[in-house]
Amino acid sequence: MPDTKQIKIAVVGASGYTGADLIRLAATHPNIEIGLLAAKTHAGRSMRDVFPHLGRIELPDLVDVDDLSWNEIDAVFCGLPHGTAQDIIATIPPDLRILDMSADFRLRDPQVYQRWYGRPHEAQELLSKAVYGLTEHYRDDIMNAGLVACPGCYPTATLLALLPVVKAGLVNEEDLIIDAKSGLSGAGRGLKQNTLFSEAGEGLSPYSVATHRHAPEIEQEISRAAGRAVTVNFTPHLVPMSRGELVTCYVRLADGREAPELRQILTEFYQLHPFVEVLDSGQYPATQHVRGSNYCLISVFEDRIPGRAIIITALDNLVKGSAGQALQNFNLMMGLPETTGLEQQSLFP
Amino acid sequence: MPDTKQIKIAVVGASGYTGADLIRLAATHPNIEIGLLAAKTHAGRSMRDVFPHLGRIELPDLVDVDDLSWNEIDAVFCGLPHGTAQDIIATIPPDLRILDMSADFRLRDPQVYQRWYGRPHEAQELLSKAVYGLTEHYRDDIMNAGLVACPGCYPTATLLALLPVVKAGLVNEEDLIIDAKSGLSGAGRGLKQNTLFSEAGEGLSPYSVATHRHAPEIEQEISRAAGRAVTVNFTPHLVPMSRGELVTCYVRLADGREAPELRQILTEFYQLHPFVEVLDSGQYPATQHVRGSNYCLISVFEDRIPGRAIIITALDNLVKGSAGQALQNFNLMMGLPETTGLEQQSLFP
Amino acid sequence: MPDTKQIKIAVVGASGYTGADLIRLAATHPNIEIGLLAAKTHAGRSMRDVFPHLGRIELPDLVDVDDLSWNEIDAVFCGLPHGTAQDIIATIPPDLRILDMSADFRLRDPQVYQRWYGRPHEAQELLSKAVYGLTEHYRDDIMNAGLVACPGCYPTATLLALLPVVKAGLVNEEDLIIDAKSGLSGAGRGLKQNTLFSEAGEGLSPYSVATHRHAPEIEQEISRAAGRAVTVNFTPHLVPMSRGELVTCYVRLADGREAPELRQILTEFYQLHPFVEVLDSGQYPATQHVRGSNYCLISVFEDRIPGRAIIITALDNLVKGSAGQALQNFNLMMGLPETTGLEQQSLFP
Amino acid sequence: MPDTKQIKIAVVGASGYTGADLIRLAATHPNIEIGLLAAKTHAGRSMRDVFPHLGRIELPDLVDVDDLSWNEIDAVFCGLPHGTAQDIIATIPPDLRILDMSADFRLRDPQVYQRWYGRPHEAQELLSKAVYGLTEHYRDDIMNAGLVACPGCYPTATLLALLPVVKAGLVNEEDLIIDAKSGLSGAGRGLKQNTLFSEAGEGLSPYSVATHRHAPEIEQEISRAAGRAVTVNFTPHLVPMSRGELVTCYVRLADGREAPELRQILTEFYQLHPFVEVLDSGQYPATQHVRGSNYCLISVFEDRIPGRAIIITALDNLVKGSAGQALQNFNLMMGLPETTGLEQQSLFP
Repeated sequence: MPDTKQIKIAVVGASGYTGADLIRLAATHPNIEIGLLAAKTHAGRSMRDVFPHLGRIELPDLVDVDDLSWNEIDAVFCGLPHGTAQDIIATIPPDLRILDMSADFRLRDPQVYQRWYGRPHEAQELLSKAVYGLTEHYRDDIMNAGLVACPGCYPTATLLALLPVVKAGLVNEEDLIIDAKSGLSGAGRGLKQNTLFSEAGEGLSPYSVATHRHAPEIEQEISRAAGRAVTVNFTPHLVPMSRGELVTCYVRLADGREAPELRQILTEFYQLHPFVEVLDSGQYPATQHVRGSNYCLISVFEDRIPGRAIIITALDNLVKGSAGQALQNFNLMMGLPETTGLEQQSLFP
Repeated sequence: MPDTKQIKIAVVGASGYTGADLIRLAATHPNIEIGLLAAKTHAGRSMRDVFPHLGRIELPDLVDVDDLSWNEIDAVFCGLPHGTAQDIIATIPPDLRILDMSADFRLRDPQVYQRWYGRPHEAQELLSKAVYGLTEHYRDDIMNAGLVACPGCYPTATLLALLPVVKAGLVNEEDLIIDAKSGLSGAGRGLKQNTLFSEAGEGLSPYSVATHRHAPEIEQEISRAAGRAVTVNFTPHLVPMSRGELVTCYVRLADGREAPELRQILTEFYQLHPFVEVLDSGQYPATQHVRGSNYCLISVFEDRIPGRAIIITALDNLVKGSAGQALQNFNLMMGLPETTGLEQQSLFP
Repeated sequence: MPDTKQIKIAVVGASGYTGADLIRLAATHPNIEIGLLAAKTHAGRSMRDVFPHLGRIELPDLVDVDDLSWNEIDAVFCGLPHGTAQDIIATIPPDLRILDMSADFRLRDPQVYQRWYGRPHEAQELLSKAVYGLTEHYRDDIMNAGLVACPGCYPTATLLALLPVVKAGLVNEEDLIIDAKSGLSGAGRGLKQNTLFSEAGEGLSPYSVATHRHAPEIEQEISRAAGRAVTVNFTPHLVPMSRGELVTCYVRLADGREAPELRQILTEFYQLHPFVEVLDSGQYPATQHVRGSNYCLISVFEDRIPGRAIIITALDNLVKGSAGQALQNFNLMMGLPETTGLEQQSLFP
Repeated sequence: MPDTKQIKIAVVGASGYTGADLIRLAATHPNIEIGLLAAKTHAGRSMRDVFPHLGRIELPDLVDVDDLSWNEIDAVFCGLPHGTAQDIIATIPPDLRILDMSADFRLRDPQVYQRWYGRPHEAQELLSKAVYGLTEHYRDDIMNAGLVACPGCYPTATLLALLPVVKAGLVNEEDLIIDAKSGLSGAGRGLKQNTLFSEAGEGLSPYSVATHRHAPEIEQEISRAAGRAVTVNFTPHLVPMSRGELVTCYVRLADGREAPELRQILTEFYQLHPFVEVLDSGQYPATQHVRGSNYCLISVFEDRIPGRAIIITALDNLVKGSAGQALQNFNLMMGLPETTGLEQQSLFP
């Protein structure tokens, strides 16, 4: 029998893609009541006006993020831009559980934050208490957290592939090459010339090579796993599709290790985790096979170069890469089964 | 408290897009247990092999359609090609409820069937008992039916727009022009040159002008509503997207009638139907706002030509246009709430 | 032996898609030297910066449209937004030939212009001298014109289909229904939410139903051909592709006329025009078959409704629908062979 | 004044994408007359029937590849599948110049060919005389060749990036990682489930990891440049677009070398080559900026990992990656200016 407790949530930053996908998922979550929706520029508008695809469900209108009342709210999902996120989150009463989908609490070191985001971190005490929300790797911490910093989409895909093998000492962490590919929704709903259909359609290009803000986030977690400071290659590309992310990791095996050991350790690590599946040898992950779902597919391949291997992951950047993982963390924080409200299968074709 | 009765279903023709989408939806339907999956050319394979996007759920392997056992099965969803469908359905024990998603039982007149499908109908007794499964218009018949012939995707979109206004005598049925546009999944999973990505991508073309098999199906239902034989224009186009269908109906108003009356009668007709929404004046239906969901959006516009109006509908061809509507009918047949298992909101972006 | 005279052109409004495509074509035109490029917001930048795909050819930097010198320029192509276009064009010395690709000189009646564009026309004397640049229908006027108003993309596709049959009295002009579909480049390079890849991709929707500014332009020309004021239905849709336009015209035949007569009159009309091809019976026009080229394909189909027919045209909205037709007109004005610089075949796939 | 000599060509294998793009380009080449078109399964059909986008040009009908007459033909372009290609080419009179776009003459060692293509090479004497047609690197050999084996699309993109820096000893050739991404046209016009629009659209996946037949071709040329046998990583991915290819090469710098030296050597190497452009620091190559053209863009980036760099190339797989490079080689063989007939600029958007 399903748990019937009702938890009232707020979604702050509900006018972006991440907020919208959180609402899409929350709308059918059996324990969630959506109590408050907030945004900045779209304040005062109805959700069906801002996101017509959500027009078939009853939702409160968007209120201004500067004019929030937390009455009766149990948990807050935050999909605001970085900077704004920390300002708002600092004002939330401490008894509310917070799931931040922005970048503001992902980097544990405020100096690293300042270097990459160009402004000092203004909520350092909160930052020190935040838990990094990569569910499969910080499960226990998340269950007890007040504030969970949900990982970026690229770090989620990358770290699910690399953390177990780095921790197990199977790969040489000095030489991690991460070739990442994402659909356009990762660039957000803001108006930019390079995300227009006519510019991005039927085309493919790299961007932010060696300068993307997800690099320090990946390095932070790889470094923790390795027990030493690690610098990685991280090269993102923009692919002409709306959703989906595929990360191809090129690794040098530690002395005497072989590619099948990578698959074995990954398979063992994730066997009890419902949303990460390590594919059988020879199977290819594909973003179209996880579209709209919270699943992450991982596959391991031998390289032609002796002593090297390739680990490839696919996920939906807005679900497991953002709103879905936030909801998965919410389930853990609330003592609900981890998969509650996340059972949707992929939409294909 | 949800109804907890479990109904065991078979999906015959599970290796096509329609079958796969039925399984996607059935997998999270609280009252369904998938007991049997069958296919013809893919018999013996696992579903995760045939459709990797369904690889995260436990499913029986595909058995051969010529080697079926109906033991313990309560209801059968049939996604076979026409012709094969009638042959298989004729062998199903009469106490099982059948939801046919093929074209075999949509045309009530076997002679019309023979003319359009080039072979005699071999199951005419069953045909005479079949109910046309346009849910919102044959609700009561469906609840009591043994065999429901789920409508084609284009007829669903078209008839939801036109039936109420034809019945109400608001439009001149001699002059119905139906410009239809569909994504590629409507063409099925069979290998055809014109549905290759490189052929269909970045391109748009009409096809089967005046000769599409959905035309007689539309005419059959319009004729019933009008009380006289009606011939319609029906012009389909292939649009470079996987899912989605948009139908633009050009109608001549009956004498003295005006476009707002169309919206009014449609709004009244569908106000208690959960999956059809008549949009407010000036709002545009869009296929991306119903993607993956069972909703149909309808909007009405005044024409620049006096005495004319435009009715536009959008739906997902694989959901409300096929598997979703089948499940909606199944709910009615089984005495379940109509929306059970169909609450998924649209996937956007 | 090719004519080797060199004509120096200016492209004003070179930072839009229309301007860029004109430059793409002009770059390989044997008689054109690109002498001046101008823009408003992008003034001072290089073309390779504004349009990297043109970075392989030598081009002058963009100068400000308010700071133009017409020295040594023989002809001006104008791709500015309406309003701005007329202001700039009014300052061009009268001995220069002007090809305006904006909407400013398409509507012959300044009152109609004011009604649809919300501002008075400020260059009415020029307007009265402008020639409507639908090449195949105003060939002689264009050869002698000083200012050619190149038609909109939708009017080009529509009028090429309808003008010959209206002129020949084959169709009833009171009942012209024009269902139009366009790719995203028709919406221009400006930043709008609905033209983002994530919004427009994998989706289809109507827009500006009964209110699109190309409607009065179509009506103007149909009315001239019919010898009386005509109102048409014009219903545009946005299709998820960058280039391409398909227009499906539903016509009621004049008494006693039949569909094959439409094909015959169209075939006869266009047989000496190199860029318009009337397809054989049963052949389908497709935008992917004219991509990047100046061709327009037309096909005629019998309707299921007796006394009705369907005429369908496909073209590339940026070429025959804009820059290509402008260049075609330029060739006529300069006494060059009509096809000069326009021999590129379609890019497929 | 253009050279006016006319060269009569045959295109054998004209019903594939490579053959069609060769015809598209040849149609406007001032020195080419298309004398013979041949195909296997489509023999007897007209080109406008097989490729409607070429329907605006006069072309001979397709004859059977088993029934060819080389009368009056000066040069042959071969776009047949491997295996068939060598059989046909072996029958061509020795005074004809041959440009093979298949894989049959790319691998210099017949044993390597047999290992990767699963059949012995049946034309080894011809093979020993074939010249590898990577224009910028085998210019002089190509000018004097009778048979040019035009490189695969991936090898072209990869080798243009890597050969100069390997030859100059700037990178460590033991550690070359090549992450390649291609549009669907690279998979050809054959019917395969994974290249259907509904399967490949809105999705991204790797394929043939460590087993792609372009790997030995890349290794052959890198090995020659390095003076020793080299094994490379080569990991291709399928991207939802029709045309375009982007290759991201991860290289370890030789001791004491720095990333800017890579750009410098590439810039110097290609400065006199009209179709390869090394971009300025910080500029990103994009496939949409070379669509339909013969250009290849190369850019160099510093890696975050000290001692590493990234070289990225973009090209159109059907043009510089196939038919365009073949035509470029033809120009050299015939003593024509290298750019003749290849001046088309990219089609964007």
